[in-house]
Amino acid sequence: MATRSLPKHVGFIPDGNRRWAVGRGLPKEQGYQFGIEPGLALFEMCKSIGIPEVSVYCFTQDNTKRPPPQIQAFRSACMTFAEEITRRGAALLVVGNENSGLFPPELRTFRARQGSGMKVNLLMNYDWEWDLSGLREGSIRSHDVSRLDLIVRWGGGRRLSGFLPVQSVYADFYIVDDYWPDFKPDHFDQALSWFREQDQTLGG
Amino acid sequence: MATRSLPKHVGFIPDGNRRWAVGRGLPKEQGYQFGIEPGLALFEMCKSIGIPEVSVYCFTQDNTKRPPPQIQAFRSACMTFAEEITRRGAALLVVGNENSGLFPPELRTFRARQGSGMKVNLLMNYDWEWDLSGLREGSIRSHDVSRLDLIVRWGGGRRLSGFLPVQSVYADFYIVDDYWPDFKPDHFDQALSWFREQDQTLGG
Repeated sequence: MATRSLPKHVGFIPDGNRRWAVGRGLPKEQGYQFGIEPGLALFEMCKSIGIPEVSVYCFTQDNTKRPPPQIQAFRSACMTFAEEITRRGAALLVVGNENSGLFPPELRTFRARQGSGMKVNLLMNYDWEWDLSGLREGSIRSHDVSRLDLIVRWGGGRRLSGFLPVQSVYADFYIVDDYWPDFKPDHFDQALSWFREQDQTLGG
Repeated sequence: MATRSLPKHVGFIPDGNRRWAVGRGLPKEQGYQFGIEPGLALFEMCKSIGIPEVSVYCFTQDNTKRPPPQIQAFRSACMTFAEEITRRGAALLVVGNENSGLFPPELRTFRARQGSGMKVNLLMNYDWEWDLSGLREGSIRSHDVSRLDLIVRWGGGRRLSGFLPVQSVYADFYIVDDYWPDFKPDHFDQALSWFREQDQTLGG
């Protein structure tokens, strides 16, 4: 079994913000702001390692059925993150349904990729059915997002929750039990070590 | 967190037959025949527990690029399994591309579900792109297969490998490190116990 090199594209599902807040006696919506710094730390880590592309599950159209203070809080945290990584040179693409739900109008310009740094795809107001329904007109709506090699999810859940179903078909799935605001670089180091040991067959 | 009841639909990825054979000093293709008895044991277990629907990843169109002795062996094992569970009253549906690759002509009649027992969907000569391309004509080709609640994979791989991407979007993913021919009822008991402890949010 040959060891593999670095993943070319990693998906991140930063789950557990609300449970983290509740565990600290805070209102649920306060969890999201504590996810920004970890996000930036992980962004810098990916850049320095040389990962060419990452995708982040920010929020879905379904998430916008949550109570308004939560919606306001996760939207605000995602916007802050998007602005900051753009300032730091990310080649940003925002993937989501801008025709319904809560797609942020301020980010409409990122519906086409901007910049030439590390590719970062942020899923905002994303919905897997919306994504696949693009096939009716020729191709999935997330056609600018490449196939995923590795998906890392925080918060212990062992499911995709609608995350990029087409790009995920052959991805290796690594789970961190800690909640996202408790991110440590060691989580991703472990995920990469584990990834290198996986056999890649693609059905052959 | 409320405990959940039984999964309504479970997907099985019975991987590791070839590695099992190699580990016993046998030619790779001999692993498949040792997967039939475990399959029947698991079928009976699901029936007695009262699981309404199961899907089994038998072989993909990609798998038919393997050496001819392997193709012959996994096709033969799958056919034997399909015949036997039909005899035991399964409501069988065979999902796969019958227009190219190695779809078994003997099973063409099961392209529409037959029987009224436990629903069993066997993926043979399946290809996820073929499945999704049905959307271009209105709906995915596996439209008679319901959404999955739980997916159990043997052989240690933590990936879907193209298994029913639409039905898998919210499924919980449970991994057994043992190879499929080493199936024990305890594997599935553990998977069900674990499943009952998972929180189900569907993005809400």
